[in-house]
Amino acid sequence: MATYYVGVDVGGTTVKLGLFSDTGQLLEKWEIPTRTEEEGKYILTDIVDSIEEKRAERGGNIKGIGMGIPGPMTDDGVVLKCANFGWGVFSVKNTLADLTGVGNVKVGNDANVAALGEMWKGSGRGHDSIVMVTLGTGVGGGIIQKGKVLTGSTGAGGEIGHIKVEFNNPVTCGCGNKGCLEQYASATGIVRMAKESLREDSVLAACENITAKDVFDGAKAGDVYCREIVERFGRYLGIALSNVAHVVDPEAFVIGGGVSAAGPIITDVVEKYYNENAMYALKDKEFHLAELGNDAGIYGAVRMVLF
Amino acid sequence: MATYYVGVDVGGTTVKLGLFSDTGQLLEKWEIPTRTEEEGKYILTDIVDSIEEKRAERGGNIKGIGMGIPGPMTDDGVVLKCANFGWGVFSVKNTLADLTGVGNVKVGNDANVAALGEMWKGSGRGHDSIVMVTLGTGVGGGIIQKGKVLTGSTGAGGEIGHIKVEFNNPVTCGCGNKGCLEQYASATGIVRMAKESLREDSVLAACENITAKDVFDGAKAGDVYCREIVERFGRYLGIALSNVAHVVDPEAFVIGGGVSAAGPIITDVVEKYYNENAMYALKDKEFHLAELGNDAGIYGAVRMVLF
Repeated sequence: MATYYVGVDVGGTTVKLGLFSDTGQLLEKWEIPTRTEEEGKYILTDIVDSIEEKRAERGGNIKGIGMGIPGPMTDDGVVLKCANFGWGVFSVKNTLADLTGVGNVKVGNDANVAALGEMWKGSGRGHDSIVMVTLGTGVGGGIIQKGKVLTGSTGAGGEIGHIKVEFNNPVTCGCGNKGCLEQYASATGIVRMAKESLREDSVLAACENITAKDVFDGAKAGDVYCREIVERFGRYLGIALSNVAHVVDPEAFVIGGGVSAAGPIITDVVEKYYNENAMYALKDKEFHLAELGNDAGIYGAVRMVLF
Repeated sequence: MATYYVGVDVGGTTVKLGLFSDTGQLLEKWEIPTRTEEEGKYILTDIVDSIEEKRAERGGNIKGIGMGIPGPMTDDGVVLKCANFGWGVFSVKNTLADLTGVGNVKVGNDANVAALGEMWKGSGRGHDSIVMVTLGTGVGGGIIQKGKVLTGSTGAGGEIGHIKVEFNNPVTCGCGNKGCLEQYASATGIVRMAKESLREDSVLAACENITAKDVFDGAKAGDVYCREIVERFGRYLGIALSNVAHVVDPEAFVIGGGVSAAGPIITDVVEKYYNENAMYALKDKEFHLAELGNDAGIYGAVRMVLF
């Protein structure tokens, strides 16, 4: 009888699911909505129903389920609150195992799981120690050391977005602190920087709603002001990643998330400032753009239960 | 027949050795000089001879040898140059195993090994994830994650002393970079800061050779200028350790090295600035002064081969 493995990436509005063969081939992927009402009580049952439906269609057995969650997770699959879903502290792993009868279940933080996915099937291929940073509305981080996710003692390992990078007039972050990387390297942060000191001589002056893409497009087209913002972005991220390297000394960095769609302009500028700030032994690490996009989560999730 | 384990801590001028029982009791400790002449070719043979002499005195067998080296080490015991000793790249582990006939040999970076020692028998007891920072002439770092040393992909994991903490007029570091933590939190760095802006109204103005101890003693006695220097020291170290926490999320920090002899004034000021800079989920970690002093190295070294 055919055996399958499922990778699940639970986001704030949609759940992405992937059905994989026992050799790690993606057979099919689909999405369901994330029902956050009533303190997120339907989220896991909806996922379990959807997996069972897919299994029944195909016949065969589900041998393992891996899942990424946007909140701090312990190594043994306990979520330590997930504000987006209204979840408190409970074992997602045990709940999922009980609901499905599948014994091989692993649950991790979504940023860490995405990093594992990029290492397995994306631009981190061939490495076993990488740092992935995801630049979207916020800044997420995932650290893989010797093939394993570094979760930390309370699930807050790899919280790169909240490393403090600005000490002079730092901007207040959603986390309550000031000067966090997230305020300078996320899409939101780039737009804020661009608006703050906007100059008449920039192409951005004519934009109605400035986006991070406008800033990178402007810089590529030679706009001096846009280039300045890109340099500021690169300096902040380069400094933060050099901090990270002095701690975990990875083989490579992978940069993903919506902002990374701007392309090599991102890795070029980050690498420049990284090398300015890293000590000799840590210079010249590899910098890659992520390759898997939104699929990194399902790949990383299933990787935790495969092999 | 009695069985013994040996912990070796190789320093720039002396080698510290400890003979341990198979339950991890320290039976005896002694030192020999580190002969760095002729590219350090005598260092390992001197150590092997000294161990054999001790073994012959007691009778019995050596079942394991652990060693800490002041240079970058890979997980499998290869040193990647050690300038102090004139060593290039070679397997210290294999050399030691060949010279002694002992199969159970492990070699690590000295700062990492000391961290393991403090976790096992010192102020990190009861934890399995700690960050140790050693404040001496330089600033060393050792990171233990889930009971294991975090070496990084090229042995440069835990190089906390070279995290950049000052961006305005940064001081040049021995590593070639500027603004490294080591220039502000080592004994040397504290003295440099104290001298740079020395004021007539400080007790330090009467010191012929200012030491880090003078600065901390002055601060304890209420000297305003000394207190300012202590605050600067604490802020730099607190920022660096908060950077580290955002990456590895340890259970506790242990602060050792000569500077830490100043006592709780150190942990108090570092903890204050750490909490100012760490994100919510990472605040309120434990801060301890190291307990084992110069013995941390032999304890950590033997711990690698025991159990």
